[in-house]
Amino acid sequence: MIIVMRPHSSDAELDAVTALIASLKLAAHVSKGQERTVVGVVGAADDKDTLLAQFSQLDGVESVVPISRSYKLVSKEGRQARSVVQVREGISFGGRTLAICAGPCSVESREQLETAAAGVARAGANLLRGGAFKPRTSPYAFQGLGEEGLKLLRDAADRNGLAVVTEVLDPRDVELVVRYADMLQIGARNMQNFTLLREVGQARHPALLKRGIAATIEEWLMAAEYVFAAGNHQVVLCERGIRSYDTQTRNLLDISAVPVLRALTHLPVIVDPSHGTGVRALVLPMSLAGVAAGADGLLVEVHPNPAAARSDGPQSLTVSNFADLMSRLAPVAAAVERSLPTPALAVR
Amino acid sequence: MIIVMRPHSSDAELDAVTALIASLKLAAHVSKGQERTVVGVVGAADDKDTLLAQFSQLDGVESVVPISRSYKLVSKEGRQARSVVQVREGISFGGRTLAICAGPCSVESREQLETAAAGVARAGANLLRGGAFKPRTSPYAFQGLGEEGLKLLRDAADRNGLAVVTEVLDPRDVELVVRYADMLQIGARNMQNFTLLREVGQARHPALLKRGIAATIEEWLMAAEYVFAAGNHQVVLCERGIRSYDTQTRNLLDISAVPVLRALTHLPVIVDPSHGTGVRALVLPMSLAGVAAGADGLLVEVHPNPAAARSDGPQSLTVSNFADLMSRLAPVAAAVERSLPTPALAVR
Amino acid sequence: MIIVMRPHSSDAELDAVTALIASLKLAAHVSKGQERTVVGVVGAADDKDTLLAQFSQLDGVESVVPISRSYKLVSKEGRQARSVVQVREGISFGGRTLAICAGPCSVESREQLETAAAGVARAGANLLRGGAFKPRTSPYAFQGLGEEGLKLLRDAADRNGLAVVTEVLDPRDVELVVRYADMLQIGARNMQNFTLLREVGQARHPALLKRGIAATIEEWLMAAEYVFAAGNHQVVLCERGIRSYDTQTRNLLDISAVPVLRALTHLPVIVDPSHGTGVRALVLPMSLAGVAAGADGLLVEVHPNPAAARSDGPQSLTVSNFADLMSRLAPVAAAVERSLPTPALAVR
Amino acid sequence: MIIVMRPHSSDAELDAVTALIASLKLAAHVSKGQERTVVGVVGAADDKDTLLAQFSQLDGVESVVPISRSYKLVSKEGRQARSVVQVREGISFGGRTLAICAGPCSVESREQLETAAAGVARAGANLLRGGAFKPRTSPYAFQGLGEEGLKLLRDAADRNGLAVVTEVLDPRDVELVVRYADMLQIGARNMQNFTLLREVGQARHPALLKRGIAATIEEWLMAAEYVFAAGNHQVVLCERGIRSYDTQTRNLLDISAVPVLRALTHLPVIVDPSHGTGVRALVLPMSLAGVAAGADGLLVEVHPNPAAARSDGPQSLTVSNFADLMSRLAPVAAAVERSLPTPALAVR
Repeated sequence: MIIVMRPHSSDAELDAVTALIASLKLAAHVSKGQERTVVGVVGAADDKDTLLAQFSQLDGVESVVPISRSYKLVSKEGRQARSVVQVREGISFGGRTLAICAGPCSVESREQLETAAAGVARAGANLLRGGAFKPRTSPYAFQGLGEEGLKLLRDAADRNGLAVVTEVLDPRDVELVVRYADMLQIGARNMQNFTLLREVGQARHPALLKRGIAATIEEWLMAAEYVFAAGNHQVVLCERGIRSYDTQTRNLLDISAVPVLRALTHLPVIVDPSHGTGVRALVLPMSLAGVAAGADGLLVEVHPNPAAARSDGPQSLTVSNFADLMSRLAPVAAAVERSLPTPALAVR
Repeated sequence: MIIVMRPHSSDAELDAVTALIASLKLAAHVSKGQERTVVGVVGAADDKDTLLAQFSQLDGVESVVPISRSYKLVSKEGRQARSVVQVREGISFGGRTLAICAGPCSVESREQLETAAAGVARAGANLLRGGAFKPRTSPYAFQGLGEEGLKLLRDAADRNGLAVVTEVLDPRDVELVVRYADMLQIGARNMQNFTLLREVGQARHPALLKRGIAATIEEWLMAAEYVFAAGNHQVVLCERGIRSYDTQTRNLLDISAVPVLRALTHLPVIVDPSHGTGVRALVLPMSLAGVAAGADGLLVEVHPNPAAARSDGPQSLTVSNFADLMSRLAPVAAAVERSLPTPALAVR
Repeated sequence: MIIVMRPHSSDAELDAVTALIASLKLAAHVSKGQERTVVGVVGAADDKDTLLAQFSQLDGVESVVPISRSYKLVSKEGRQARSVVQVREGISFGGRTLAICAGPCSVESREQLETAAAGVARAGANLLRGGAFKPRTSPYAFQGLGEEGLKLLRDAADRNGLAVVTEVLDPRDVELVVRYADMLQIGARNMQNFTLLREVGQARHPALLKRGIAATIEEWLMAAEYVFAAGNHQVVLCERGIRSYDTQTRNLLDISAVPVLRALTHLPVIVDPSHGTGVRALVLPMSLAGVAAGADGLLVEVHPNPAAARSDGPQSLTVSNFADLMSRLAPVAAAVERSLPTPALAVR
Repeated sequence: MIIVMRPHSSDAELDAVTALIASLKLAAHVSKGQERTVVGVVGAADDKDTLLAQFSQLDGVESVVPISRSYKLVSKEGRQARSVVQVREGISFGGRTLAICAGPCSVESREQLETAAAGVARAGANLLRGGAFKPRTSPYAFQGLGEEGLKLLRDAADRNGLAVVTEVLDPRDVELVVRYADMLQIGARNMQNFTLLREVGQARHPALLKRGIAATIEEWLMAAEYVFAAGNHQVVLCERGIRSYDTQTRNLLDISAVPVLRALTHLPVIVDPSHGTGVRALVLPMSLAGVAAGADGLLVEVHPNPAAARSDGPQSLTVSNFADLMSRLAPVAAAVERSLPTPALAVR
C-alpha cells in the first residue's frame, strides 16, 4: 500500500500517518518528492480494504494506492499452473479439449429436453445445460419446473452420455440441486449473492460462476475467492456479456475478459455467446471469436423449436444450427491448438 | 405490441404472424407502409416477454416493439395517487415531511451505535440505519455482527425514538430481521435476488429496495413488482448510484432517476448520497441536489469516528458533519415545499 | 510516479528501472516490501504520459502509478481562488449571481429568436443561447443558418440586453463567430477536437466547454488545459450529461460532476439540464438539483413553440415554462446563498 | 413511424395527431387497443428526426417509435452486395484477403519508420499505418511531425511496397494529407466532427472511419453516411474499443460489432486490437478473435522499440511480436475461409 500525501501537507499530518502504520505493526518508507510526499507501507494485513479506508481518511492524505491484490487463492501469483476442473470422468474444463455445454434455456418438458439433449450430444457437446429454477425479470414470466426439471435433466443427460450443469438460485436449494446435477451454475444476477456463494463453496461440487451484469474482473475474482475460501476449489468462470449503452445486442460480450483472466487467474474460463449477445445470428461468430481468444469452452442455448421457447428463444440455436456451429468451430479450435470433445456414445 | 416486418417480407411471412396472433386469441391490425408492413397486436397477455420473444423469431419479422409496460402494480397507470409508506406512527415515506435515515454502515459495538443514534436523532433523523449482515466484496472483510447487531440496533433506536431500517441478505434470515427491524432493506447486489424479493414480499414489513449497480429503471420497477406481487405493497425505492466509467466517484448517483420515477410509479423514492458517491465531501451537495429534485428522503452513513469504521469510512459523515448537513438541508427542503422531520424526543 | 515491480522480479530488472530513472536525471527511492518492491520517482517531467508508458514496459514492472496530476493551469493546486469569467459588464460566471443562458437549440428565424430572447430576458436570463452552426447526427437534418443565424443572435441579444453564447464547429469559423458572439461554445462532440480547442485558445474570447459524451473529468480538464495553454484563460465548464445504458433519458446528467470539479479546478461550472435529460419534464427538477449542488449557472433550451422546433423540441421549454422555472429556482438559489440575475432592461 | 398514445388520451388529442400527419401529406393508420391507441404513419420524410420530435411533443402522445432506419446509403437495405474498397492495385478491404495495416502509433524518425515498415512488410502487412498529426489528451504531449511525418510515411511505404493510411485531424489539412497518403483515417475523437467528415467526403480518397469512444453502431453508420452523402463511397469502418467501467483494459474491444455491422451495412469492417485493449499481451488473442468473428482486416501498432515510443508504447508490438502474430493468424484466417496478404516485394 502506498499513501500519497497532498501537496503542502504538514509534518504533523505525516507523523499521524506513520504513527498509525506503527500501531498496526507495519513498516513505513517515507519518500519526499518535489510536490508530494509518498509513504510506502510494508507488511501483511488481513482486511486490506478496511486498512485502505482508514488511511485514506487521515488529514493530509490525497490517495491510497493498493499494491497487492485482494484475491489470493484464485490468483496466478499463488499458483502458476492452470487449474483443470474435472466434472466427470472424461469431462473437464481447462485442458486441451474444450468443454461444450449446450441445451435449452429452460427445461420445459421431457420431450423438449430429450430432443435437445440427443441433438447436442450427437453434435459433440459434452455437458447438458438447462434451467429448472429460472431468474426472470418479471414475476409474471415462467419461473421453471423446479425439482421436476432437475429430474428431467438428469435423465436426458444420462441417456445421452452428458454431464449436467444447471443454475441454483436459492441457498436452500443447493443440496437438492447437488443431488441431480454434476455442476452448479451461479448466475450473473447472483454473482455477489454472498450467501449463495458460501453455500456453493461448502458443496464441493464443481461450480460455474457467471460474471455479474456490470462486474469488474476483480469483483468477479473476489466472488470466486468466496467459493474457494469456503472450501470449494473447483470453479470455472463464464463470461456472459456486460451492460453497455448500445441496444443492438442484449449485452456486450467482453471477449477480452478471456485473455485478461488467463493472465490473472489459474481458473478455466468459458464464454456464453447466447446471453452475451441475445441474438441468434451472432452466436456462431462470437463462439468462434471466444475460442480463438483462448476460451476453455462454450455455454450455448439450443432449443428444438426456439419460436416456442418459454424463455430466451431469440438467442437460442436450433439443433441443426448447433451442429453447424460445431462443424465451423472445429477448424478454429484446431488453429489455436484446441480440440472439440469426442461425441459421447449414447448410453441407451 | 407492434410487429415490424422486414422490407420485402413475403405475404406468407405476414400470414404466419397473423395466424400466431389469432391462435393466441388476440387481434391484429395490419398497416402497410412504403418500405415496411407493421402489425399491431391488440389484447392482453400475461407473460409479455415470452410473447415478444416468440414473434421476434418469426421469419420476416424485423423487430417487435412493446407498447404497454411490464410492471402493473407499481405503475402510475394503475394508481395515480402517490403512495405513502408508513413505517411507524409518525414516520413515513412519501408525505410532505422527508424521511431521513442515518447511521453507521456496519453495527460495530453498543457504544459506537449509541453515539451514532443519539447524534443523528438530535440532528433530526427519524430512522436509524446500520448493517448487521454485511455484503462485502472480499470474503476476508468484516461480515457484520448478525443477530447481536440487530439487538443493538433495536435498543439504540428505541432509546432515541428512531425506527430501524437494516439489510437482510439471506432469505432464511427474513423472519429474524423482521423481529428486530421496522423496515427491511434489500441491497443493490440483491435487487434481482428473486428468492429474497419473494420472501420479503411475504413479510408484510415495509421494504427499502435499492437500485442494482447497473439496473435500468424498468428492471428496478420489475423488482418492486415482485415484492408487490407476493403481497407486500409497502415498498420504497432508493437510488444509490450506478456503475460508470469515471473513477472520481465510487458510483454515479443518478439524480434524474428521482423525477423519472415520480412520472412512472406511485412509490416513494429516496437517495443514498453516501454509496452514491463514496466520498464524504460529496454527501452534502448531493443530499441537497436529491431533495431539490424531489426525493422523499435520504439514507446517509454517519459514524462517530469514520477513520476507525470497519466499512465505508471514507464516505461516512461524522455526527457533527451530519448536523451541518441537516441545517443546510432545511432551507432547500423549504424551497421545494418539503420539511424535515421534527427531532424525536429521546424516550429514555 | 511510483513504479511497482512484480512479485519475484529480479535484481537486474530493478537495476534497469533505476538506470532509466537516472538517465532521465530523476531520483529513485527504492522500498522493498514483503511481496513487491516499489520505486518512487522524484523530479519533474514535461510529458508524463510518455514517461509512464516507458516505465510500464520495462521487464519486471507490474504497474506504474502517476502521483501528480496532468493538468496544471486549470488545477486548484496552482490557483486556490475560484475564477470568475466575465463575459460582459455585469454578466459573469463564478460569482454569487448565477449565469442563466437560455434560448432555442437552433436559430430558425428572426421572429422565433426575438420571441425567445424577449421571453427569456423578461424571465431573468442574462445570456442568449442559440445555434447557428448545428452538429447533427444525420447529414439530412437541419444544419443551421450559419452567419445569418449569428446576425440574428446579435440583434436579438442587443435588443434584449443579453450576451450571446453560441457554438463554433469549424476552426475556420472561429474568427467569424467571435465577430458576433460574446462567448464561444465548444460542443460535447468536439471536446477533444484539439484543432478547435487550440483555435479557441487563441481567440481570447470567453469559452464554454461542454463535457464530451463519455469524457472522464480528467479528460475534460485536459481539454480545458488545451485552451489555457493556448493563452485563453476564460473557460467555463458545462456538464451536459454522459452516455449511460438506460433509455429513459437521452443522457445521464452527472450532477456530482459539479462538486467534484469544485474540488479539482478553479473554473466555473454550469449545468445543461436540457441535453442532460432530453425530456422537457425533467428540466425543472434537474435545474434545481444542479444549483443546489453548487453549479454557477444553467444552460437551458427555450423555444416559443417547441412542437415546431427544427431541433431538440422535446427537451425545449416554452417561454412560460422557463418563467416558471426561474420562479421555482429563486428560493433554491437563495437556500444555497446564490442569487438569480437581475432581469436586464430592454435596450430598445 | 408509429405513434403510441397514452392510456386515456382524448379524442381531441388523437385528432391533433392525425391532423398533423395529414398536414405533412402523410397517411395515418389508427389502431385502438385495450389500453392504448396506436397510430401508424405511412410515407417518406427527409428529416425523420425532426418529425419524430414533433409528434412526440403533442398532447396525449406517450412515445414515437421510428420504423425505418436513418442511414440509407450505407445500409444493406439499399445495397445487398458487400462493398470492396480498393486502396491501390492489389490492396483492398472487403475481399477474401484480409487487409493488414501495421506500423507505429506516431511517426518519430526516418530510421524508426523504415525499420517498422520493412519489418511489417516482411511479415505480411499490406498497409503502413503511422500518425503525423496526433490527437493527444495532454497539450504537453508529442503532437506529431506534421508534413515531415507524411513524407517519411510515403517514402517508407514506397520502399516496402505498402500503401499508407494516416490520420487527418484538421479539415484544413485534408488536401495536404491526400497528397501523401492512400487512405485517410478519421480518428475516434473525430467520429462526429462533421466538418471533417464532409471535407473527407469531398476528397474521394478511401477513408478509414474509427468508431467514437462511446458511439452507438447507429451513430457510427450515420457518420459514414455523412462521408457518403458528400460523395465519397469508399469507407471502411474500424472498431477500436469503447468506453467501459473496468480498468483492466484501456477500452473494451467490441468484437460483436463486427457481425452486427455485417448484418446492417455493406461496408468493410476491420478491428484495432491495439487501441482496443491498450495492452500488448492482448493484441494477439484479440486479433485472432476479430478475424474469427468475420473482420475484413486489422490495424495494429508495431514499433521497433516500444519502450522508447513517443506514444502508445505499452500497446505496441515489436516487429518480432508482429511476425509471430501473423504466423498465428494464418491458420485462424484459413479456418474462416480468409487469407493473409501475400508479402509485398520490396520495390527497392
